Amino acid sequence: MRADPARTALSPGDGAMILQRADELAAYSADGPNVLTRLYLTPEHRAAAACVADWMRDAGLATRMDAAGTIVGRIEGARADAPTLLIGSHIDTVRNAGKYDGNLGVILAIQALRRLTREGVRLPYAVEILAFGDEEGVRFPVTLTSSRAIAGTFDARNLDVADAGGVTLRAALKAFGGDPDALAACARDRARIAGYVEVHIEQGPVLEQQDLAVGVVTAIAGASRLAVTVDGFAGHAGTVPMTMRRDAGAAAAEMVLAVERVGHDHGVVATVGQMRFAPGAVNVIPSRAEFTVDLRSASDADRLGALAALTGAFADIAGRRHVAVSHAAAYEEKAATCDPALVAGLAAAATACGHAAEDGAALRLPSGAGHDGLAMAALCPFAMLFVRCEGGISHNPAEAITAEDAQAATDVVARFLKDFRA
Amino acid sequence: MRADPARTALSPGDGAMILQRADELAAYSADGPNVLTRLYLTPEHRAAAACVADWMRDAGLATRMDAAGTIVGRIEGARADAPTLLIGSHIDTVRNAGKYDGNLGVILAIQALRRLTREGVRLPYAVEILAFGDEEGVRFPVTLTSSRAIAGTFDARNLDVADAGGVTLRAALKAFGGDPDALAACARDRARIAGYVEVHIEQGPVLEQQDLAVGVVTAIAGASRLAVTVDGFAGHAGTVPMTMRRDAGAAAAEMVLAVERVGHDHGVVATVGQMRFAPGAVNVIPSRAEFTVDLRSASDADRLGALAALTGAFADIAGRRHVAVSHAAAYEEKAATCDPALVAGLAAAATACGHAAEDGAALRLPSGAGHDGLAMAALCPFAMLFVRCEGGISHNPAEAITAEDAQAATDVVARFLKDFRA
Repeated sequence: MRADPARTALSPGDGAMILQRADELAAYSADGPNVLTRLYLTPEHRAAAACVADWMRDAGLATRMDAAGTIVGRIEGARADAPTLLIGSHIDTVRNAGKYDGNLGVILAIQALRRLTREGVRLPYAVEILAFGDEEGVRFPVTLTSSRAIAGTFDARNLDVADAGGVTLRAALKAFGGDPDALAACARDRARIAGYVEVHIEQGPVLEQQDLAVGVVTAIAGASRLAVTVDGFAGHAGTVPMTMRRDAGAAAAEMVLAVERVGHDHGVVATVGQMRFAPGAVNVIPSRAEFTVDLRSASDADRLGALAALTGAFADIAGRRHVAVSHAAAYEEKAATCDPALVAGLAAAATACGHAAEDGAALRLPSGAGHDGLAMAALCPFAMLFVRCEGGISHNPAEAITAEDAQAATDVVARFLKDFRA
Repeated sequence: MRADPARTALSPGDGAMILQRADELAAYSADGPNVLTRLYLTPEHRAAAACVADWMRDAGLATRMDAAGTIVGRIEGARADAPTLLIGSHIDTVRNAGKYDGNLGVILAIQALRRLTREGVRLPYAVEILAFGDEEGVRFPVTLTSSRAIAGTFDARNLDVADAGGVTLRAALKAFGGDPDALAACARDRARIAGYVEVHIEQGPVLEQQDLAVGVVTAIAGASRLAVTVDGFAGHAGTVPMTMRRDAGAAAAEMVLAVERVGHDHGVVATVGQMRFAPGAVNVIPSRAEFTVDLRSASDADRLGALAALTGAFADIAGRRHVAVSHAAAYEEKAATCDPALVAGLAAAATACGHAAEDGAALRLPSGAGHDGLAMAALCPFAMLFVRCEGGISHNPAEAITAEDAQAATDVVARFLKDFRA
């Protein structure tokens, strides 16, 4: 890898400006200045979108909103025939969110292009920054609406789903200024798109543990979610001998440990996030336990192997304890593998900027969380750059990154864009 | 054990009449004819008390209500100097209760004395049937008010506790026709009381498993209750590797299995009835788990040994998993041992009536549930006779006994009363 002659010339203020803009953007919230909640197609989404469009124009991009409410900022390249590179993330949030999940990717992309514009760099290919509006899927019972529209995979039947207040996605889109009847026209021509790149906070602790500012994502993990119900037999906590119990709670506890063990053994992440005993009285043996399982892996084979091991373990435990177990698949999503060439490009940029692990290579890691890339993968090659976040904390007001790491990620993206050939 | 010449002469209709009266009494409910809820000092308690007093008078007893609302039915004995035998149970219920918990003990005692009266049997000692009103402790945050008043252990400061509607125990007692200022005068003279005997459904499955209608209680188990909190660290279910987790839910699951194992190893019953993971999202590693532990044993030493083993196991698990565990003692009650002479008398009566196990002796078993005997133990020797109930089910509308078993228990009590010498 050659040294980077431009590195010392990079603007020192990008990181600080990114953090300042993240603070500014966080003010567009449904829940006041101190609690960030910004759901798809809400007034605060509109206000944040307007702010982001202003920043795009300041960076030299021409802006428009597409039919799904995505803000698109475009800067033409030197070669009109070159396909366009897409770079973006989302500006919707969960309730009581952190400031960086999604928003960082949009702000940082703008910052990188702003720097190139100010440096007078003209890329050979066009770049579009996409500020998606529906990655978290909190308001409506569908998600990735905005990226699926661009990928051409949005199912128009989903326009009829409604939020908790009974407002349909169709009506909300109209009120926002989008066009539910034009979503199909958002779909891009594959031949004219070079790829999709997204910067995102890691939302996990690996980069912090490895002492690295950035890492390159290899794949977005596939996921299986189960809703598990264990049925035993209730009884008085004082009067039923231990040997005569069919305790649904104790059986579920053993299953939780099986989930953990299978996660370790199969190299997947496996989580029981919800657990409830019924009837739920201190002096009653639980007749029922209900819990969830979330399994994820960048390898679908590993995930499905773990799932089979898990359901087998559940059946064994239930049989031994004379309780019944049933599980319903609540969600199933295949892994999306990042494009090797884009991964190599991001890794080369990270290494060139000095953000390599001890072995001299940029850290590569899977993304356990879902992202717009899951949808964009249907359209074009995609890749992601992860930015270290404090304690791996995300979906939480305590979400934090440093200006130094924001600077580092901007350096890497700028470098990647300069070196990329569409 | 000699044969029972009176056995074949016993009235065949007692069991059926007891079941019919249990049905009648169940109509006195706050929640309509199909859901039995009868809390202390409520209008339905008053109506049930009046009904029970009628039945007592029909059986030849003189009735009165004491200052705590207990219905007392007395029949004098042949010898005025003999101390009085108390026999009773409670007529309050939990919400959505079964018909037999408590009520059976009162109805069956009346039935046994009614039979003796009709047979012209005059016992040498006086008998009082007590229909207590506050065994379940559902309405007020205190319990055993009525039996503690008779035992002389009621703490007058408890008169100021209030129910969910803000009505104090003092006000409720006055409105019921009781006398909060005269509770101390309810206390009986120990020298004049021979003992307290209670008939109660087992509320467990042991008699059913042993194919026996009745069993004799050896002790009311002592109990320890803990509220346990495990604090780990929340994280995204997809992004935190298994090896970097501090999963409060998985730690709590391991603790549940430790509770179960300690129960087995120490010969106590140990139950986790409540469990909650927080934040409680399918895709978030639990930062906190909260659960309860209920430990019971007829041996205080066994119970305290199990408690020590359990808290040690919790500390080990927490240390190994890098989570914090804390536990607060929510309740602590010592075991109350039944009087050996009364136990022997009930066992002899049961055996004489043909209700013995394969070894020829009546089954002796501990009571895991608490009863008015816990309070009465402070006043006098006490003992209990358990009656088989279907599936061990209790505190549930499905609570059921057979007429044959009610008959059997009436036979045993009548026999016991005839043989008892105060």
